[in-house]
Amino acid sequence: MPTLVNLFDYEQAAQTKLPESVFGFYAGGAADEITLRENHAVFNRIKLRPRVLTNVSQRALETTLLGHATAMPIIIAPMGMAKLAHPDGEVAIAQAAKNADIIQCLSTLSNTSLEEVAAVGASCWFQLYVYKDRNISQRLVERATSAGYKAIVLTVDVPVGSLRENLMRTGLQLPTGLALRNFDEFYNTEAANIRAFINSQLDPSLTWHDLEWLISITPLPVLVKGILRGDDAKRAIDCGVSGIIVSNHGGRQLDTAVTGLEALPEVVAAVGMGTEVFVDGGIRRGTDIVKALALGARAILVGRPVLWGLAVAGQNGVEQILAILRRELDTAMALCGCASVADIGSDLVTRELAGSTR
Amino acid sequence: MPTLVNLFDYEQAAQTKLPESVFGFYAGGAADEITLRENHAVFNRIKLRPRVLTNVSQRALETTLLGHATAMPIIIAPMGMAKLAHPDGEVAIAQAAKNADIIQCLSTLSNTSLEEVAAVGASCWFQLYVYKDRNISQRLVERATSAGYKAIVLTVDVPVGSLRENLMRTGLQLPTGLALRNFDEFYNTEAANIRAFINSQLDPSLTWHDLEWLISITPLPVLVKGILRGDDAKRAIDCGVSGIIVSNHGGRQLDTAVTGLEALPEVVAAVGMGTEVFVDGGIRRGTDIVKALALGARAILVGRPVLWGLAVAGQNGVEQILAILRRELDTAMALCGCASVADIGSDLVTRELAGSTR
Amino acid sequence: MPTLVNLFDYEQAAQTKLPESVFGFYAGGAADEITLRENHAVFNRIKLRPRVLTNVSQRALETTLLGHATAMPIIIAPMGMAKLAHPDGEVAIAQAAKNADIIQCLSTLSNTSLEEVAAVGASCWFQLYVYKDRNISQRLVERATSAGYKAIVLTVDVPVGSLRENLMRTGLQLPTGLALRNFDEFYNTEAANIRAFINSQLDPSLTWHDLEWLISITPLPVLVKGILRGDDAKRAIDCGVSGIIVSNHGGRQLDTAVTGLEALPEVVAAVGMGTEVFVDGGIRRGTDIVKALALGARAILVGRPVLWGLAVAGQNGVEQILAILRRELDTAMALCGCASVADIGSDLVTRELAGSTR
Amino acid sequence: MPTLVNLFDYEQAAQTKLPESVFGFYAGGAADEITLRENHAVFNRIKLRPRVLTNVSQRALETTLLGHATAMPIIIAPMGMAKLAHPDGEVAIAQAAKNADIIQCLSTLSNTSLEEVAAVGASCWFQLYVYKDRNISQRLVERATSAGYKAIVLTVDVPVGSLRENLMRTGLQLPTGLALRNFDEFYNTEAANIRAFINSQLDPSLTWHDLEWLISITPLPVLVKGILRGDDAKRAIDCGVSGIIVSNHGGRQLDTAVTGLEALPEVVAAVGMGTEVFVDGGIRRGTDIVKALALGARAILVGRPVLWGLAVAGQNGVEQILAILRRELDTAMALCGCASVADIGSDLVTRELAGSTR
Repeated sequence: MPTLVNLFDYEQAAQTKLPESVFGFYAGGAADEITLRENHAVFNRIKLRPRVLTNVSQRALETTLLGHATAMPIIIAPMGMAKLAHPDGEVAIAQAAKNADIIQCLSTLSNTSLEEVAAVGASCWFQLYVYKDRNISQRLVERATSAGYKAIVLTVDVPVGSLRENLMRTGLQLPTGLALRNFDEFYNTEAANIRAFINSQLDPSLTWHDLEWLISITPLPVLVKGILRGDDAKRAIDCGVSGIIVSNHGGRQLDTAVTGLEALPEVVAAVGMGTEVFVDGGIRRGTDIVKALALGARAILVGRPVLWGLAVAGQNGVEQILAILRRELDTAMALCGCASVADIGSDLVTRELAGSTR
Repeated sequence: MPTLVNLFDYEQAAQTKLPESVFGFYAGGAADEITLRENHAVFNRIKLRPRVLTNVSQRALETTLLGHATAMPIIIAPMGMAKLAHPDGEVAIAQAAKNADIIQCLSTLSNTSLEEVAAVGASCWFQLYVYKDRNISQRLVERATSAGYKAIVLTVDVPVGSLRENLMRTGLQLPTGLALRNFDEFYNTEAANIRAFINSQLDPSLTWHDLEWLISITPLPVLVKGILRGDDAKRAIDCGVSGIIVSNHGGRQLDTAVTGLEALPEVVAAVGMGTEVFVDGGIRRGTDIVKALALGARAILVGRPVLWGLAVAGQNGVEQILAILRRELDTAMALCGCASVADIGSDLVTRELAGSTR
Repeated sequence: MPTLVNLFDYEQAAQTKLPESVFGFYAGGAADEITLRENHAVFNRIKLRPRVLTNVSQRALETTLLGHATAMPIIIAPMGMAKLAHPDGEVAIAQAAKNADIIQCLSTLSNTSLEEVAAVGASCWFQLYVYKDRNISQRLVERATSAGYKAIVLTVDVPVGSLRENLMRTGLQLPTGLALRNFDEFYNTEAANIRAFINSQLDPSLTWHDLEWLISITPLPVLVKGILRGDDAKRAIDCGVSGIIVSNHGGRQLDTAVTGLEALPEVVAAVGMGTEVFVDGGIRRGTDIVKALALGARAILVGRPVLWGLAVAGQNGVEQILAILRRELDTAMALCGCASVADIGSDLVTRELAGSTR
Repeated sequence: MPTLVNLFDYEQAAQTKLPESVFGFYAGGAADEITLRENHAVFNRIKLRPRVLTNVSQRALETTLLGHATAMPIIIAPMGMAKLAHPDGEVAIAQAAKNADIIQCLSTLSNTSLEEVAAVGASCWFQLYVYKDRNISQRLVERATSAGYKAIVLTVDVPVGSLRENLMRTGLQLPTGLALRNFDEFYNTEAANIRAFINSQLDPSLTWHDLEWLISITPLPVLVKGILRGDDAKRAIDCGVSGIIVSNHGGRQLDTAVTGLEALPEVVAAVGMGTEVFVDGGIRRGTDIVKALALGARAILVGRPVLWGLAVAGQNGVEQILAILRRELDTAMALCGCASVADIGSDLVTRELAGSTR
């Protein structure tokens, strides 16, 4: 095996290792995958304006997220069915997150129950859909609270499933024995029933009232994930959310949607100081993280690369991914003249992005 | 045959199935085909800014076009000689349009008489050129009126035929037995005579007075097709047209002309509220339709893909094309937070297009 | 041989027919050939905004250039050593120009004497360098006047020869018997001496005073060729020139220079009404000509394609090139709604070009 | 061997001649090499606006740099370990610089001692890092002063080493016998220890105070190299530097950093008249030099191409590189209408660059 130096190397290695349909399920995007490609490409179009001679001998990558300390401004994004990549699945990811002292945002659609993941002891957020059967959502929130999750992340950009053409073409053969374990008390989601169950529970009637309802039923802070507009972000704040995750769902929902990075300045401007804004989509380099923070993000979420690490070498592979990102972020900060994440200001980036959204 | 998932798949399948010269006749554009390629590419450069949590459980794709209800804002564009694609030709298209409850705009240059198409019972518009022999035009309008057509569409961007280089190179061998059936009472247009007849009847002397004349001789609403400027659109309104179709004739006339989508905002601004503006050229995705409507179109016209469906599987293939477009539009609306076509506002798109025309 | 439909086809055919070094000599540009490629590419980035319903039944391509009538706004650009392409050389070009009733601008560096070319009877301009030996220039002007040339074109963008890397690599083997016939009375320019002679006579000390001197010694109107700035154009007018040819010498002199088309609006604005401005570089399509005229050119010059026609079929090939350009220009005008060249206004093009020069 | 006509040819020839790891060490950049590629590409996007008829018979390429006359506005950039390219290493470069009468800026990390290089008799600057052990820096400055160096160049963009992925993949096998000879009095830097030594001495705690300290300990003018922002440049001036070298370290440090050329106008505006500003990165053509000077640079530095010349033919190869650059600059100036470097004004370039940085 060649030396795996960066996150792209891990993607290639994972592609070699995983069945084509599984790699395609993880890697693919909606329709023509224009947004999928733009998600990373947009980072390459923003240029850095590094400072010099600022004393960066002690770099502090630590930050706080919703008031909790974390080792670096990197969160593991929610991703469904991690056992497709490796039998250790979500538990391996949680172990790696724990060892790196960062937050894992667990997907509702995990192959491991939220309780089993929590038992690992990492700092966790729980990602949720509000299902047609509101009792399921309420029960999951209660269980996440009991299990010690620190926040609830409501995904709002899946009113309906998207048209994933690669799956239409190849299908996705699930290995027997895999299930969405969080639903075991409601439904048998073994193998082939998964997709049908999910689609049956997606609720396109969701509105801001449902967000308010969710906030009302839990003592945990609630974040919304999937916002791409300033006005929507403002409205979420008015509903009482504790944070906004700017995201286009990894290019898997609405093709040709704006990228999170493009929408970020608009969202940050709309919500003002005091609300934590996060962004995901296409982050593959330490310099990408610097750019996201320079444009106002409190932290970023990274998804697929974690699965590539998991596929390549289980927990160890995830730790390698996180170590690469940490090393790259540390180096990028040093070369930009930033001794701490608080030093990463908007003057570090060119404004080529300006005007790409209204 | 591989699964045909989207409109590009049908194009590929049709290319396999049709003789090269026929595929080239349908697929080709003028000169270097720059406008042909731009027609679709321009859609990919506009980004969507989706709304969330708006309750999209009931999506209404219905709209009215010139006061008549239609199932979705999609019109089948006029295309000549459909029997080159399939022996069922225009009748198969009409059946599919009827079943989908959308409008078919029949080409004057059809291989089936307008009466035979009307007998299918779809909601139809009739596309027309004003010929050198004005009697032919008048007679066609009278026949269309008698046959129950709902509107007359005057194509104004063919004062002369364009230089179709692929035809110069390969020629187009027409199968015997094909004719322009609407002209049977005037002229024998079998096979080799078709091109000569059309060219002999194109009238480059046409002016706005001829448009006024056409409006004066029919009780039907008249639309003009082939407008790419605000001032021309305004003038057409002053002449009394009921609608404007912004179009560059599918990139088949003037190479390097602006695309319909680029010209659309200028035209919409020029004609103001109350005039219905349509656009065609390059629409291949549900998201393309959302963008056209966001920029002010009342509906869009789709051409070549209908022929690809026809070539692949006759009426059934056309229905598949329409079903794909409906499913994609429905999904795109849901993901944009639009429960009805009236919800598709200009705030949904980025303004990258702005300034591309004066 | 495949059907030759457009100017690109002729280029390909000429490449097949000519020795590599000769094709390279004609086709090549300076350094990385960035300007060479941009010369045509810039036309493709400007979009046309056609008018409709304007009565284009009678298209008048005729115009006047410096007061003389010409059949269309196309001038054959000065090109050296046409006999490398075909033994009939400049005489064949002159015959074709005469038959098309357009102006040929003969290069000083022709393989045929200016008198022999004039004898053909086409309307001719004579292109000139001011040589170190001013007597040569004076004598050539007198001879051109005597021979009936209508104007003198002074090339001002060759103070020194450029670095033509393709020639450095391959050399150019001249067939014996070729000479610069206009210099027979001064120097034996047979074959291998040509380059040495030219380089020895190029005068980098040339200034506006030399232009004034040239104007003073001839009753003929003088044009300058090789202007790319408004201030230089204005200065040339102040010296008394009768016209400006905006040109970067076909991308053969200063690589990464602005294209003629990009510089054209600035030049037109600087010289104001009443001075005729011409442009060359990269024109391959009738729509290119429309764009140049829309941006203020009185006419355009076309160079290399004439040589491709000459190489392919002698005089007949040149006539084919001119016929294609005429047909394409005629069609483009009709499709733009222009019945005469005077109808081609600046509103026909998008302003994407704006700002590319200061 | 094919004729080597331009700097790209030498790069190709060097790649053939050098071991892959050595070529990669020299040619490579940080991470995805986006900045590496942009460094040259940005020059191609700026267009020249040449003047004509200005009398360029006598071109003066001479200029003064920090008050010393030099034959042309080209400085040899500091590059470490030149003996990897050729056994004659830095001495061969110095001989070529001397013969061309231009300045060589010697790298601290040379395989030849600064005294041995000075003995050649070229006009030299000495590049320096401020090391953790300040005594090393002080001692090197004293030695450089004694040896007759004309200026000290402090590199400020390496607070930490960058992540050079090509080296991570292939390693770099140093031939035995190579050492960083300037450090012989401090440390044995033979072969494998080199990298460890450098990394141990890089001091990320460096601040503007260290720059002030450096200026205070030497009578020589001090320049800073690695500035990419106007505010940093201004601050360096306030510290007392004599010149600014705008640079991103050849794309070897922070990937996606702005290019030197993009940052140049901002730096020039910030420091005002009277401070000499230099730029490096991606200069491969005489026209590139004209553009850098037009945007405000006093001179440019050229690095890798010098190594390609060295690798291909030792001192002779370096002289060929300098001769090509001189010939190209001379030609570009003539074709731009500039008789001296003082004639190269900002009006010569288009402003396409404007706005790429804030």
